Amino acid sequence: MSAWLLPDHIADVLPSEARHIEELRRDLLDTARAYGYELVTPPLLEYLTSLLSGASQALNLQTFKLVDQLSGRSMGLRADTTPQVARIDAHLLNRRGVARLCYCGPVVHTRPASAHATREPMQFGAEIYGHAGAEADLEILELALDCLRSARLPAHTLDLADARIVSALLESEGVAPLGAEVKEAIHAALAAKDVPTLAGLVRGLTGLSAQARQGLLALPGLYGDAQVLDEAARVLPALPAVGQALAGLRWLARSLGGRTGVSVGFDLADLRGYGYYSGMRFAVYAAGVSDALLRGGRYDEVGAVFGRKRPAVGFSLDLKTLVGAVPARALRAAIRAPWPGDEPAATDLRAAIARLRAQGETVVCVLPGHESEVDEFHCDRELIDSGGTWGVRAIASQPHTV
Amino acid sequence: MSAWLLPDHIADVLPSEARHIEELRRDLLDTARAYGYELVTPPLLEYLTSLLSGASQALNLQTFKLVDQLSGRSMGLRADTTPQVARIDAHLLNRRGVARLCYCGPVVHTRPASAHATREPMQFGAEIYGHAGAEADLEILELALDCLRSARLPAHTLDLADARIVSALLESEGVAPLGAEVKEAIHAALAAKDVPTLAGLVRGLTGLSAQARQGLLALPGLYGDAQVLDEAARVLPALPAVGQALAGLRWLARSLGGRTGVSVGFDLADLRGYGYYSGMRFAVYAAGVSDALLRGGRYDEVGAVFGRKRPAVGFSLDLKTLVGAVPARALRAAIRAPWPGDEPAATDLRAAIARLRAQGETVVCVLPGHESEVDEFHCDRELIDSGGTWGVRAIASQPHTV
Repeated sequence: MSAWLLPDHIADVLPSEARHIEELRRDLLDTARAYGYELVTPPLLEYLTSLLSGASQALNLQTFKLVDQLSGRSMGLRADTTPQVARIDAHLLNRRGVARLCYCGPVVHTRPASAHATREPMQFGAEIYGHAGAEADLEILELALDCLRSARLPAHTLDLADARIVSALLESEGVAPLGAEVKEAIHAALAAKDVPTLAGLVRGLTGLSAQARQGLLALPGLYGDAQVLDEAARVLPALPAVGQALAGLRWLARSLGGRTGVSVGFDLADLRGYGYYSGMRFAVYAAGVSDALLRGGRYDEVGAVFGRKRPAVGFSLDLKTLVGAVPARALRAAIRAPWPGDEPAATDLRAAIARLRAQGETVVCVLPGHESEVDEFHCDRELIDSGGTWGVRAIASQPHTV
Repeated sequence: MSAWLLPDHIADVLPSEARHIEELRRDLLDTARAYGYELVTPPLLEYLTSLLSGASQALNLQTFKLVDQLSGRSMGLRADTTPQVARIDAHLLNRRGVARLCYCGPVVHTRPASAHATREPMQFGAEIYGHAGAEADLEILELALDCLRSARLPAHTLDLADARIVSALLESEGVAPLGAEVKEAIHAALAAKDVPTLAGLVRGLTGLSAQARQGLLALPGLYGDAQVLDEAARVLPALPAVGQALAGLRWLARSLGGRTGVSVGFDLADLRGYGYYSGMRFAVYAAGVSDALLRGGRYDEVGAVFGRKRPAVGFSLDLKTLVGAVPARALRAAIRAPWPGDEPAATDLRAAIARLRAQGETVVCVLPGHESEVDEFHCDRELIDSGGTWGVRAIASQPHTV
């Protein structure tokens, strides 16, 4: 085995992509800040008891475990940042009112989430705590879409759903309480729109009314444009939670209005993700990316394990996936400068270089003996000595490899 | 145990500090970019064979180990980024000429490096590969000092040293080859300026000349201003490597010239860090911070394990330490806006909010029912409806908690 081989689904991010990801990172954080979201940076490592309390089995399996040499206790490498932000809201900030928080940093997965997924996503997300009303849902949706606009994502689709619809059907009157495994299996079948498996699972449920059964089996077909909501109102049982969810989705879609480049749709069977969602949920899809680029929704239960159950709604995305879905950005051209030697004249050259750098220019000094090398930065100008003063001159186009 | 307790030496970074670290991160990366350093992002996890090949025992002990579920092989969580960047230079870029690279991301330590150190530093660094001359040493030093200036670090001290001095003394003619343990013990005694322990260790060395012995014991006293170099020339044996090192340090100190706020000194016994240094090395100290804020130097051997030994010089620092050593930055004040409801008039309000955010302002919308809450952002202005158009008005000072 060569010393330079990396594990599967783990990769270095090389210069041109790393630069693009850094620019996206800044655009996303600046967009969140413009909305009043405060940055927090939870640690990569925590005790398992805090990282996984109340978490789904899926998140548990995604989490690397290791032993803390200082305490002997088990720690986990975070696979998702949301439970950490809930902990911060519950204990560190402990605010009575609304808290708007955002974050950006790596998360690590034991196994890739899909065939081409990285095991080290760079997770960016924003969350709002303390407001149970639909206004918070709307603000998060608008922020999510503005973040994608700042990243210059081409035309994309926003799919809306509501986790309460499935819960209402599964917990409708007369149904025997479901085990976690059965519930997860039903969610998985719904997410995969696997109707035969779903039908088999639903047949096994004790006490389910014919109407609720019919509703569950109809869900995988309930995706598309606004007509889906009319269709849902017809085929789903008239339970209060179902009616509220459908009205909420209708209001959100109307409030988002007509955004250029975004088509709003519905996918009432969508239940992917970490299973902490408790209300409205959404996902954004773009051409050429097989999985959702961004996922979010309401998860009012997520802070409960930290002793403070607050209303919460948020979203997250992976910058390493996003960078592949947005157009490349041009590299700002640089200036090539000779190496300032020890001669007295070098003082002027040094000053000229420092001035250009302070103006935001990239000035690459050619180290002695490397004059004939190809620049990695595209240098379209050079610093030259014209009669005692240093000036910038355009240079003929040259090959560059970045 | 409460679910919200964090492991020792692990902490959340809360809003005001997280914002400051993010600003420092951008300043440092922009400074490196102005010098022509390209950003790379190596992964957090790698196989141990690549992460620790050729690494010191100290780095090995600092590295968390875990098992890759996909391959069954051992992986490590990076405790230092330099070996990864050497791997990237050696195999991924594989350039013949000069490569300038920088990085910024978390590293994780099994144990804190000192009594108050975090186990999750945010490591920023820059490295130049492919040039063996002292010009690369000088460029890295200038970049390091410019980075600290961009971070607005108050007056600080740059200590210069050279790893070749100790090596030359320990490997001088007639000395029996040293075991790694003895060498590490001598380095540790020198770093701690522990002369009694050093004397004991030096006494145990076979074949050491009286002059070399005297030189080793003099090193802990060789720190201070430029006179140290004169003193060193007197008390150290006249070995070629020692002469070269002293001349190099003299040239570097002169070339750095008089920088405001930086005093240049020498500490010829300084051997702290990961032990991969092979030539000139340096550290920056500031008032109120017990350990070095920044460390760097030449490590020409570091790429050897990846089959490509290239000249290399670089530095790194921890942003979480740096943020505590630089003055706090004022939070840009925000604008408070009412929540735009469903009324037709809300379209104008929404447009006004979007316009202000696009201009770089933070506009916090007050969610319905939260009008009396204290803003976490310091809002010094508000959006108000003045006769049909929305305008920004200053508001009286109010308490804020950020």
